[in-house]
Amino acid sequence: MNSLILIAHGSRLASSNEEIIMLTECLQEKLADDYFYISHAFLELAEPSIPRAIDMCMDLDTRRIDLFPYFLTAGKHTTQDIPAVVEQAMQKYPGVDYEIKNYLGMLKGITDMIAETMSN
Amino acid sequence: MNSLILIAHGSRLASSNEEIIMLTECLQEKLADDYFYISHAFLELAEPSIPRAIDMCMDLDTRRIDLFPYFLTAGKHTTQDIPAVVEQAMQKYPGVDYEIKNYLGMLKGITDMIAETMSN
Repeated sequence: MNSLILIAHGSRLASSNEEIIMLTECLQEKLADDYFYISHAFLELAEPSIPRAIDMCMDLDTRRIDLFPYFLTAGKHTTQDIPAVVEQAMQKYPGVDYEIKNYLGMLKGITDMIAETMSN
Repeated sequence: MNSLILIAHGSRLASSNEEIIMLTECLQEKLADDYFYISHAFLELAEPSIPRAIDMCMDLDTRRIDLFPYFLTAGKHTTQDIPAVVEQAMQKYPGVDYEIKNYLGMLKGITDMIAETMSN
């Protein structure tokens, strides 16, 4: 009973947040065998917040929550803000495994994907 | 004689900007057959700026400049700021072809790459 939460920064632009929702919907299709529940959450400026998304996972009786920061580089958001929110969740729901995955910019495949796209 | 400029937002954190430099260096290796010059540029907060990076391309007598916005979602930066800077470059160096590529979040391969990474 694993859940995945894709964490984006959040924007004042509704269209930007909708891009995140669409990405999450694509991942729901592609990762249906790996996660029974996949949601998005926003660190700032939009809903659902990370705590709200975690609440929703717990309503579904999840045993493990993977959190994937959809961020390009390491910074305060990835090194402090997201871990702090997850720490609070661990205190609220201690009987659950949490793992903050590598953020997007760290994924090994990203350079190859860009190179393939840019190759003429 | 094609050049590629990877455009990142730029950060006050030197380590974040260094991640962009490392990514650019990886792309230099992988796209050596497609571009004779590949550079990074920052929209804000760090150097080189986009105009400075374009100046460097022109010093090398480039004929075409592809610009790749390393951004996750569409917003003011991708829809207004970057096109405005490129428009200025077109006026300064009219004898060159410019193309602003799709930003990172729009690349078709991104969902598959994330799904492969998250698949257990």
